[in-house]
Amino acid sequence: MTRLAIALGGNALIRRGEPGSTEVQRRNLQAAARGLVTLAEGSRAEIVITHGNGPQVGFLAIGAEMAASVVPAPPLDVLGAETQGQIGYLLAQALNDAFLERGHSREIAVIVTRTVVHGDDPAFGNPTKPVGPIYDEATAREHAAARGWDIAPDGTSWRRVVPSPHPLRIVESGAIRALVESGVLVVASGGGGIPVVERPDGGYDGVEAVIDKDLAAVVLARSVNADGLVLLSDVDAVYRRWGTPRQEPILRLSYDEAMEGLSAGAWPAGSMAPKVRACAEFIKGGGRFAAIGALENAVAIVKGSSGTWFGGDAVGLPRRAVDSAA
Amino acid sequence: MTRLAIALGGNALIRRGEPGSTEVQRRNLQAAARGLVTLAEGSRAEIVITHGNGPQVGFLAIGAEMAASVVPAPPLDVLGAETQGQIGYLLAQALNDAFLERGHSREIAVIVTRTVVHGDDPAFGNPTKPVGPIYDEATAREHAAARGWDIAPDGTSWRRVVPSPHPLRIVESGAIRALVESGVLVVASGGGGIPVVERPDGGYDGVEAVIDKDLAAVVLARSVNADGLVLLSDVDAVYRRWGTPRQEPILRLSYDEAMEGLSAGAWPAGSMAPKVRACAEFIKGGGRFAAIGALENAVAIVKGSSGTWFGGDAVGLPRRAVDSAA
Repeated sequence: MTRLAIALGGNALIRRGEPGSTEVQRRNLQAAARGLVTLAEGSRAEIVITHGNGPQVGFLAIGAEMAASVVPAPPLDVLGAETQGQIGYLLAQALNDAFLERGHSREIAVIVTRTVVHGDDPAFGNPTKPVGPIYDEATAREHAAARGWDIAPDGTSWRRVVPSPHPLRIVESGAIRALVESGVLVVASGGGGIPVVERPDGGYDGVEAVIDKDLAAVVLARSVNADGLVLLSDVDAVYRRWGTPRQEPILRLSYDEAMEGLSAGAWPAGSMAPKVRACAEFIKGGGRFAAIGALENAVAIVKGSSGTWFGGDAVGLPRRAVDSAA
Repeated sequence: MTRLAIALGGNALIRRGEPGSTEVQRRNLQAAARGLVTLAEGSRAEIVITHGNGPQVGFLAIGAEMAASVVPAPPLDVLGAETQGQIGYLLAQALNDAFLERGHSREIAVIVTRTVVHGDDPAFGNPTKPVGPIYDEATAREHAAARGWDIAPDGTSWRRVVPSPHPLRIVESGAIRALVESGVLVVASGGGGIPVVERPDGGYDGVEAVIDKDLAAVVLARSVNADGLVLLSDVDAVYRRWGTPRQEPILRLSYDEAMEGLSAGAWPAGSMAPKVRACAEFIKGGGRFAAIGALENAVAIVKGSSGTWFGGDAVGLPRRAVDSAA
């Protein structure tokens, strides 16, 4: 049976500018779940899903700040763990409903997931990922002095920045694999996973960092021996000459083309570049195919008729199985 | 192999009056994890663990209130899901460390868990469980009017109260059983599980309620066909004549004695009574044994030499295996 690892962009859950209410998340997740279930049923694939948590961890950090006089604000790894519970629960509910709409039921399990990063990752010397509230410069500098934060300007305001180290492996990979193999639809590695560093004694220490969820999805995909990695967001493809009047969607990218484009800075560092890097890494490491596209085109993406395709075989799944559901 | 379901009191994680900081939780969980690992290694049992979330969900509710002008406060089911991520992560880390201290490693998985309750449970007509911040009467009445809350006096102040319906089953029971059977130490049903009501179409709706974690532990124990149910807290046994100068620990309780004591109001409704009820329910339903006692006596409890024992067989586990680790 084909096995797919699917990553859902954080903006599929809370769109830019939307309030972080549960109601908004439920509505967006309902649409996302329908797309995922169409894909699951259409492809008859075993599926493991991961998701971003950018907006959610930001909202939790803002709340934690405001309540800090009463409850000490948790570190970022703990906030990340909270978003895995929150989003995982809401996504599981939405997936159950979307399966029911198609007359099926499917067992779903959300695993709280830790992702191991290297303590010597160069990212720890160069924190770049903004998280949490927006401050004026003076307040940001106060926090930096009092709490050891790194801060950086973000437009006209200032924010805390944290490292974004490269994901190495998943602590819970054995459990995730066991569940996937027993037919459970698994949700794991939410927000890229809770970042932990392995100590020499084999234990794990949580670190205040953010792991790119698309790179974490590659690790997840490998953990379950997935055939395909599918990165779904609100952008319908990787583009050539992005942001210019002559921009056009790219239908296929080889590993070499992807690496050349990344070196040349062809795609935005904070959004498309890590997706392209993730897909390139996955096929280079032996994955059958990878694809990037819009959530609403999920089935067509896996057929190879929408989005951007990486890997030798343009159609990664039996065409008929997919066609019948599309 | 013997299989144990173990419930850890919320106060084992944050003691009464302690601040809800991650540091405090980490320290308390370290002690709790050592007790659990001593039990796991001493008994050589397969283990599934659940835990309370009372203080944690209270702190999250307070934070959510304070930040409500910026981020709409999530409903209680979502806050419960967040505590499963938070506590589950910290507990998994502490368990890994405690196993390492004994020279072992063990795979641990935290499952975000939904517990099904009946929409017609009489508890929904009689909300009694206080949650979240403490208010003066006027503020409490404002919230009640604006948000449809039930409120009740709590000493000289007022709090929101929610229903505490009876747990029926666990949505994720198949996944939990599969993991336990493959040797994974599972943490599930945190805080009694996220309460959901099953709709006629088979889907689930989250409800704002709190499920008693000890009764939820019975459902969890049955889901994995556990031999024993062990309820660990900071109290060393069930007491006869509790709160009087003549109080004394009870070594063994039969089902009938337990039910008589419960009818007579022998134990406090909010703390010991649900534990006694849970143990009685478990052995009545075919469980081999159940026990109530202090976390630090975990191994002795399972030997039958500490705490209060329910069920026919005073020693539920091979004495030698337990002795060698105690």
